Amino acid sequence: MRLNGRKTDQTRSVSITTNANKYAEGSVLIEFGDTKVICTATVDEKVPPFMKGQGKGWITAEYSMLPRATQVRNQRESARGKLTGRTMEIQRLIGRALRSVVDLHALGERTITLDCDVIQADGGTRTTSITGSFVAMAIAIHEIAEKHKLARFPITDFLASVSVGIINDEPMLDLNYEEDSKAKVDMNVVMTGSGKFVEVQGTGEEAPFSREEFNQLLALGELGIQELVELQKTALGPVISEKIEKVAAAARG
Amino acid sequence: MRLNGRKTDQTRSVSITTNANKYAEGSVLIEFGDTKVICTATVDEKVPPFMKGQGKGWITAEYSMLPRATQVRNQRESARGKLTGRTMEIQRLIGRALRSVVDLHALGERTITLDCDVIQADGGTRTTSITGSFVAMAIAIHEIAEKHKLARFPITDFLASVSVGIINDEPMLDLNYEEDSKAKVDMNVVMTGSGKFVEVQGTGEEAPFSREEFNQLLALGELGIQELVELQKTALGPVISEKIEKVAAAARG
Amino acid sequence: MRLNGRKTDQTRSVSITTNANKYAEGSVLIEFGDTKVICTATVDEKVPPFMKGQGKGWITAEYSMLPRATQVRNQRESARGKLTGRTMEIQRLIGRALRSVVDLHALGERTITLDCDVIQADGGTRTTSITGSFVAMAIAIHEIAEKHKLARFPITDFLASVSVGIINDEPMLDLNYEEDSKAKVDMNVVMTGSGKFVEVQGTGEEAPFSREEFNQLLALGELGIQELVELQKTALGPVISEKIEKVAAAARG
Amino acid sequence: MRLNGRKTDQTRSVSITTNANKYAEGSVLIEFGDTKVICTATVDEKVPPFMKGQGKGWITAEYSMLPRATQVRNQRESARGKLTGRTMEIQRLIGRALRSVVDLHALGERTITLDCDVIQADGGTRTTSITGSFVAMAIAIHEIAEKHKLARFPITDFLASVSVGIINDEPMLDLNYEEDSKAKVDMNVVMTGSGKFVEVQGTGEEAPFSREEFNQLLALGELGIQELVELQKTALGPVISEKIEKVAAAARG
Amino acid sequence: MRLNGRKTDQTRSVSITTNANKYAEGSVLIEFGDTKVICTATVDEKVPPFMKGQGKGWITAEYSMLPRATQVRNQRESARGKLTGRTMEIQRLIGRALRSVVDLHALGERTITLDCDVIQADGGTRTTSITGSFVAMAIAIHEIAEKHKLARFPITDFLASVSVGIINDEPMLDLNYEEDSKAKVDMNVVMTGSGKFVEVQGTGEEAPFSREEFNQLLALGELGIQELVELQKTALGPVISEKIEKVAAAARG
Amino acid sequence: MRLNGRKTDQTRSVSITTNANKYAEGSVLIEFGDTKVICTATVDEKVPPFMKGQGKGWITAEYSMLPRATQVRNQRESARGKLTGRTMEIQRLIGRALRSVVDLHALGERTITLDCDVIQADGGTRTTSITGSFVAMAIAIHEIAEKHKLARFPITDFLASVSVGIINDEPMLDLNYEEDSKAKVDMNVVMTGSGKFVEVQGTGEEAPFSREEFNQLLALGELGIQELVELQKTALGPVISEKIEKVAAAARG
Repeated sequence: MRLNGRKTDQTRSVSITTNANKYAEGSVLIEFGDTKVICTATVDEKVPPFMKGQGKGWITAEYSMLPRATQVRNQRESARGKLTGRTMEIQRLIGRALRSVVDLHALGERTITLDCDVIQADGGTRTTSITGSFVAMAIAIHEIAEKHKLARFPITDFLASVSVGIINDEPMLDLNYEEDSKAKVDMNVVMTGSGKFVEVQGTGEEAPFSREEFNQLLALGELGIQELVELQKTALGPVISEKIEKVAAAARG
Repeated sequence: MRLNGRKTDQTRSVSITTNANKYAEGSVLIEFGDTKVICTATVDEKVPPFMKGQGKGWITAEYSMLPRATQVRNQRESARGKLTGRTMEIQRLIGRALRSVVDLHALGERTITLDCDVIQADGGTRTTSITGSFVAMAIAIHEIAEKHKLARFPITDFLASVSVGIINDEPMLDLNYEEDSKAKVDMNVVMTGSGKFVEVQGTGEEAPFSREEFNQLLALGELGIQELVELQKTALGPVISEKIEKVAAAARG
Repeated sequence: MRLNGRKTDQTRSVSITTNANKYAEGSVLIEFGDTKVICTATVDEKVPPFMKGQGKGWITAEYSMLPRATQVRNQRESARGKLTGRTMEIQRLIGRALRSVVDLHALGERTITLDCDVIQADGGTRTTSITGSFVAMAIAIHEIAEKHKLARFPITDFLASVSVGIINDEPMLDLNYEEDSKAKVDMNVVMTGSGKFVEVQGTGEEAPFSREEFNQLLALGELGIQELVELQKTALGPVISEKIEKVAAAARG
Repeated sequence: MRLNGRKTDQTRSVSITTNANKYAEGSVLIEFGDTKVICTATVDEKVPPFMKGQGKGWITAEYSMLPRATQVRNQRESARGKLTGRTMEIQRLIGRALRSVVDLHALGERTITLDCDVIQADGGTRTTSITGSFVAMAIAIHEIAEKHKLARFPITDFLASVSVGIINDEPMLDLNYEEDSKAKVDMNVVMTGSGKFVEVQGTGEEAPFSREEFNQLLALGELGIQELVELQKTALGPVISEKIEKVAAAARG
Repeated sequence: MRLNGRKTDQTRSVSITTNANKYAEGSVLIEFGDTKVICTATVDEKVPPFMKGQGKGWITAEYSMLPRATQVRNQRESARGKLTGRTMEIQRLIGRALRSVVDLHALGERTITLDCDVIQADGGTRTTSITGSFVAMAIAIHEIAEKHKLARFPITDFLASVSVGIINDEPMLDLNYEEDSKAKVDMNVVMTGSGKFVEVQGTGEEAPFSREEFNQLLALGELGIQELVELQKTALGPVISEKIEKVAAAARG
Repeated sequence: MRLNGRKTDQTRSVSITTNANKYAEGSVLIEFGDTKVICTATVDEKVPPFMKGQGKGWITAEYSMLPRATQVRNQRESARGKLTGRTMEIQRLIGRALRSVVDLHALGERTITLDCDVIQADGGTRTTSITGSFVAMAIAIHEIAEKHKLARFPITDFLASVSVGIINDEPMLDLNYEEDSKAKVDMNVVMTGSGKFVEVQGTGEEAPFSREEFNQLLALGELGIQELVELQKTALGPVISEKIEKVAAAARG
């Protein structure tokens, strides 16, 4: 049993609240236990210079934590004058992961920017951001698809992310901050609704891990992600969910 | 009658929710209609270098808006690498205003940092930040006073802020974004619970204003601030409120 | 009596010397006692990107102090790599104040940049900068009006600024540095030649102030500004002054 | 057969030349085909502030590419004034990977900085940097161990890294730039000499991948790393290699 | 004859006005024709970290131009967020030149910062800055020598600087901006009162120059510098001038 | 005799290896003893904005040292976020020197960027960079001349650079780091193959120097440069060398 009464293969209580922002084209407040992230999707009817004229859209993400999202206050990155390596790494990961389930040609020359702002952090902020951003992005893309009568629906599958790790030789799902700081191995898994891997980032800085441990962690990750995809479907509602499922089913053949 | 059905001397619906953050020593979510700001107070048991050895504390503030707090997405200041002049001006104002009602000697060599993060912006974010920060700060200072058994309670009065402006020759209280963009004259008023001015910043960029108009605006501001101070008392509860009132009454003689 | 022999309602000795720079389209050296500021106006026959195509001009200002303008040397902002909040606040104020007396449509798609460089600082550098910049700007705009035969003269009124404050319960006009550092209340007033307010910024960080004190300060400010406007007229000479007065009189009806 | 005549499980020609720099405490020039990286190890007899007083050492890395290391010239990061996200991600990875095989307590309060400067880039620069840095670090640590007669030898195992990917459904080892740009799945593997994983970063931005594909890639990666560890042993010579092996064997029990 | 009626070996009208600033330990306004520079010397009773504990002082310089010092307005370096290469080159040159005539041991652990702010630029700003800074520095050092009763007077010789160049095959002294932009060869010479070279920087970007031309230019430079040293003596007055001459004479033996 | 067995008028062993980089349009590895610099030339078929539409090309240079090129590790300029004054000064010098022997009209609207990256530094890195860059540039320009069948060959003369200095009253050629740190006078000379001066930068920070010493240094510099130009010819081969010589001979008449 874990400190917080969870089983090793159990996620924290997760909630996804849509319409968390009055202005954004898509938005959610997503909570994994005490981790709370606001994800907004902003649609821009043009692409960045390096993408111009290719007939394709672009998905990008930015990530930030409020200074007191954590136990100890962090200096604002705007006050330092630059982003930390951790922030850059996370926002590159979020953008890359989301792009893997978007048909950029079907989207057309538009940019969607996902802003993930961590209001409170208790571990797993990057996986929470990916899982929440997917929902905000899907709402925004659905609106584009309706308004511009896109020929193909541009989202090709569901996408969610969860962390797994090994604590005292025990693989565990969805670590909170306290668990994360005790874990010898730490892995973030991003998967599609069809059960394929999009990103796997495993780190054994404290202790290298074996092939067998790796497999146990991946299995736990798969379990968590199936659960999260169900929550995403509920949050998105049947209309949008069915459009995504239809495209995904067609791709699986 | 105003667009939103308010009378000219009526504020928007205001709510102050304490404990908006799990980690901070004091925190509130404050809402003025659709303007929403999270204010957290962080206590640091030391002062910045320029204050060292004076036996006095320090109060400082930082202000930021989430990129999609507004109708059009703003670039993050962390991505630009520097704060805008507007942000600097606002956070200097918040800090200065709060210091005016803190007895820094009574506080002792400690720093309290107020972080005001605008989740959604519909006008009046700086006055909302001041009004909310006062509550977060009072909670944090009360905790310090208890824990360190301070000889004097360091808060000398209540403090709130509201905007006023002139639209079509009509003075109005608490402008929202749409009203603010039509106002010829725009003024931010910061006052104490005892009815004294701490900051008055009036701007007639579009049209200079007369002494008489000035007086009408100040009167409206006073009205709004009395109402806000009552809401602060409710949010803080009787124990803290009475401590502040006692110090303020003693100062008034 | 004040330390320097002045009466409470008396400004320091003020001088405005035009043609202080060989290259600028308008320039003055303005001195308020030991405070010395060079103000130059640069005309650019285009507007910044955000103003393009509106048929309007733009007025903007930059402010800086030489490192040894003050008793203790300040680090250059170019060496720190960024402007301080104080500088940003001041240059935003100067630009906003000047724009309030310019008919931007009459000016046409041109930008005038006022550079206020403080050679020596003894209090009141921002009010001195506004008062001096107005003269430099008027010279430059007059030249534009002549050269391009503008249909309407674009300056709508005179504009000057002065500081007032309360020292030992006594309201005083035009504080020097020593007085400023003793003042409990500090206010900067910007007014037009017709006696209307453009900006009022009052701060009671050390001690909040009452409505009555506020009124006394405003009255002192009005007095000082009338005097400064007379000096501006002398510096500008009758040709330019009469053009401004004519537009202002027409606007007053 | 691959474009360059290699088999799918074959690395490029790899060479590791020690003493590539006259001043550094350890240095190598490492070449993977046309990818060339200079790795230098600098020893500093103190640790960064956040590590002070813990009796532990620190290993950190910096990574950079010469502007014309690539087909198209890249702007220098010093000229932009900041590091790109890619650079930060890579240097964080190198440092983390190296720390996993160093007993920081045995090292004592010292910092070793690995500088990885890419002279020419043809794919795999981050894995090449890790593999080369390990050798430069081992030389520098061996010198410290001798000079300060350390009680325990601080390196706990060999460490190398290689990339793997899937091109046209075929898993391949050690992609060059041309192959990398065609790969649908791209994975970097960091492993110890004892065959345990330290980092696995797999990305399927273009196409998600299955559990089976994942396993094939890991197997290829293991193969490549065994080969690289042999080259590291040759470069380091028997004295240092045996010290590392002894510690690793003891840890494996 | 030159455009401005000067002979080829004639400097512009030069004036050096001391006490140009109320606060600085030494200050001058120096004018070479229409080039005007304020030089202030600030004394700090400590040295920068890299100089600590050596029993020696330090002389450093900063250089800047007001944005409208030139015909076309230049963007402020504080607004760009960094110094240009030109500024860095000039301020390094000024500091290096001044240090060549200061006995840093005799000065003791103090720093003197020379700020050279160009009010108006018409060519030769760097040579004007060196010539003016020497006087401001000498005044400040004299005050230190008196106040702290230094054992040896720390200035070892006079120091001045002038530009020379070749225009239409004719070597000329002290080029103004218009001449400078026509010169094929441009040289800045810094010399001591005793006639030795401290810095010679000759550039033939437009056309390489011969040994003979070089010698003609050096001869012109020597001529101009003797004249400038006389003006420095007058500006400094006999007391300080004699102290410098005495040290210089002793060194020459 | 010098420490390293050289005579006072003898350069270190110099080697110039072309094709040091697989991608660049021109490249060399140049070694002056233990000083090693990679110089690459990148051709861009356009000019910077300030040069547009003049029918002329542009030559520019960037310079950097690897962090451990020196005995003590230097912080990367990319990590500081800005270039040092030294770097700016050097890269401006390299660009200016190279432009003096290029007929920019003959080159046409193209930019050539020379990147000088110091792999190992033992004194004379700026003169080594100029000497090596000339060769890399010549290779790149020859390729342009062939490919675009330029009407005139754009290189007007050979160009090389060497340092000279005075150590213990003895003028010496090509100082290494140890000698350089003992030199009282330090001079960098840039000359053409025809024996004209392009840049002379002499500094006597430690001790001013006389006209006679100056002449001795220039003579030594001329000697060294003739030798370096011969090495450049060998490195470039007869085809390119003869083209340069032909243009230079024509110019000399």
